[in-house]
Amino acid sequence: MNISGLNLPLRDEKPRQHGLTVLIDNGLPIEYFKDMVNSSAEFIDFIKFGWGTSIVTGKLIEKIECLKENNIDYFFGGTLFEKFLSQGKLDQYYLYCKKFDCKYIEISNGTMELTNKEKANFISEFSEEFNVFSEVGQKDADKADETTSSDWIEFIKEDFEAGATKVITEARESGTSGLCKATGEVRMKIVEDILTSSINIKDVIFEAPNKTMQSLFIKYVGSNVNLANISFSDTIPLETLRLGLRSDTFYLVNFDWGSIREGQK
Amino acid sequence: MNISGLNLPLRDEKPRQHGLTVLIDNGLPIEYFKDMVNSSAEFIDFIKFGWGTSIVTGKLIEKIECLKENNIDYFFGGTLFEKFLSQGKLDQYYLYCKKFDCKYIEISNGTMELTNKEKANFISEFSEEFNVFSEVGQKDADKADETTSSDWIEFIKEDFEAGATKVITEARESGTSGLCKATGEVRMKIVEDILTSSINIKDVIFEAPNKTMQSLFIKYVGSNVNLANISFSDTIPLETLRLGLRSDTFYLVNFDWGSIREGQK
Amino acid sequence: MNISGLNLPLRDEKPRQHGLTVLIDNGLPIEYFKDMVNSSAEFIDFIKFGWGTSIVTGKLIEKIECLKENNIDYFFGGTLFEKFLSQGKLDQYYLYCKKFDCKYIEISNGTMELTNKEKANFISEFSEEFNVFSEVGQKDADKADETTSSDWIEFIKEDFEAGATKVITEARESGTSGLCKATGEVRMKIVEDILTSSINIKDVIFEAPNKTMQSLFIKYVGSNVNLANISFSDTIPLETLRLGLRSDTFYLVNFDWGSIREGQK
Repeated sequence: MNISGLNLPLRDEKPRQHGLTVLIDNGLPIEYFKDMVNSSAEFIDFIKFGWGTSIVTGKLIEKIECLKENNIDYFFGGTLFEKFLSQGKLDQYYLYCKKFDCKYIEISNGTMELTNKEKANFISEFSEEFNVFSEVGQKDADKADETTSSDWIEFIKEDFEAGATKVITEARESGTSGLCKATGEVRMKIVEDILTSSINIKDVIFEAPNKTMQSLFIKYVGSNVNLANISFSDTIPLETLRLGLRSDTFYLVNFDWGSIREGQK
Repeated sequence: MNISGLNLPLRDEKPRQHGLTVLIDNGLPIEYFKDMVNSSAEFIDFIKFGWGTSIVTGKLIEKIECLKENNIDYFFGGTLFEKFLSQGKLDQYYLYCKKFDCKYIEISNGTMELTNKEKANFISEFSEEFNVFSEVGQKDADKADETTSSDWIEFIKEDFEAGATKVITEARESGTSGLCKATGEVRMKIVEDILTSSINIKDVIFEAPNKTMQSLFIKYVGSNVNLANISFSDTIPLETLRLGLRSDTFYLVNFDWGSIREGQK
Repeated sequence: MNISGLNLPLRDEKPRQHGLTVLIDNGLPIEYFKDMVNSSAEFIDFIKFGWGTSIVTGKLIEKIECLKENNIDYFFGGTLFEKFLSQGKLDQYYLYCKKFDCKYIEISNGTMELTNKEKANFISEFSEEFNVFSEVGQKDADKADETTSSDWIEFIKEDFEAGATKVITEARESGTSGLCKATGEVRMKIVEDILTSSINIKDVIFEAPNKTMQSLFIKYVGSNVNLANISFSDTIPLETLRLGLRSDTFYLVNFDWGSIREGQK
């Protein structure tokens, strides 16, 4: 693929275990959706059908067929899980996910009042049937302000222990809550505390909806950091950031996963 | 359509009288335009060909044919009316609208120095041949700052009396003038004064080009508020906001139009 | 084309020497790319394959064929030149550009530590084989702050003397460095100093990635100013700004290139 002769950071082939790119579909029209997926499938690991968009998106089945043809997996946004839960209809959410042949499910408490312990119980339950991506972090900016590094680390660990395959850190589509302050600034102290904890960073996926966040995580964690909430139009720009082909990560050195904790110092 | 089993706010079928979504086309390429319209026609009531884009957009006739097939109506941006007026060529604007078989026309004074009374005279004149959407509010941030609640209410009423079918409140594509301050903040006092006036809010269309404004109007006025200047890419995201399927409007209760004035308290 | 009857500023037909619009492709999917190019080729003079996106973009050859059919020229972003240079592989960059049949090449020092004199030497060298678009200005906000009007003017002149066909002024895709402050504000004093210098402004291309910058340059330099880093979705909006069909440039008068220096006063 790389016919340029440039030395570039190594990226695993799909299906890969880390260096994951999770796009978010917020209800794109079908032909554009297929156009991007068909053009760049090698750089796309998962599609999240954002929040409750799957309920109103036309041609959902056609989208899913396109993903299957391109070996891309998919799941519905955690807000949809919470919506069913808030109406006491988790049984119907189970059926909804089965109907669309989901292998993955996202379980979150970003909007509802739900303790991490309660969320962990749902992770246990659903992990019997699905690969669970759990989400840690609050969509509400004030609540997000109150969450400490210890909380983040405790919640992430609790989710893994309950059976989550990966844990996603919240930042929304706007990068203004969860791991970000309302101003958009990343809570770097928390990121550093997570990176230097005993959490296996290869199983964490960071929501990083803008170039600033993407560059920051690539510089701190490496080319093969797992990133989510990537807009369709950022598929190629993100890959160039991973490869040091854009000014923001121009001097990126290839990341040594073995020395990750030392690497942060 | 809703096979999820969730309880969702009720939306009328098209053609509907309120709960209107007016998209703005700023010159999209033809295939993408058709892709979105064909994918989501049930959620689109009108397309505005923004400002003077119709003059330079290729394939305008093909776009209009696509809209007719999908029972979506259309009109040209008010700035184009003002451009013809500024050159003393309203007769040619009449012909231009007829040539493209317009049933609707937008009449505004957002850019030109034109009193609301003068604008109302044009509304009277054009309403003999077209359904007139009039626009109230200034694109210039300084002028917008000087416009009081009384002005807004007076101008809206004057436009209805002159024959406007609907009145649109200005916010531009950027949400930084008209009903918004230059900072993007919505002038809530004016919105509340309009809502508690004798104006029939079902005949008002609010320009709401971003998620913050869309969420705000949905929470204040209800799922079936009329919204305009919606970008094509926000078609599905807006519908999820109307239905309480996104965090921002998650706890939305179904709106009772009969109690609208009480509802604001 | 203009069947409206409006008086509009004159624009040259393609191929034109000024009034150039240079779009930036950041890795768009192939069908959308062709859709925009085929819909609006008359308004597009060049496509820049931004930074190193060409390395990872699928269907690059198909994109280039589409451009050739529409008489649109193209080049790779200056950051790619710098990437090859940083690895001591300029010979391979030469081959890379030849492989894709490039007639134009961009040479910059926006990211690397490279004096303008050193950059000028590369301009001389590559101008024997290519039309060189050189870029002046720093991507790093702090370095950009230190660059004075005299620096800008000296560097632009040095690039022309070295053989550059056009000189591009840096602003990035975000409009936050180079000729812009980190806040996005344009360094107007520098722009004015360039405009009133002996530099032939017809050979300068201003990066103007947002509406504010586009409107500003159109108002200061005229409808036929050369503009770059235009996103695909701004193709038609930019043309309406050039023609005075949008509120921001509504009262634009047709620009007299003969009186350009007087025109600034």
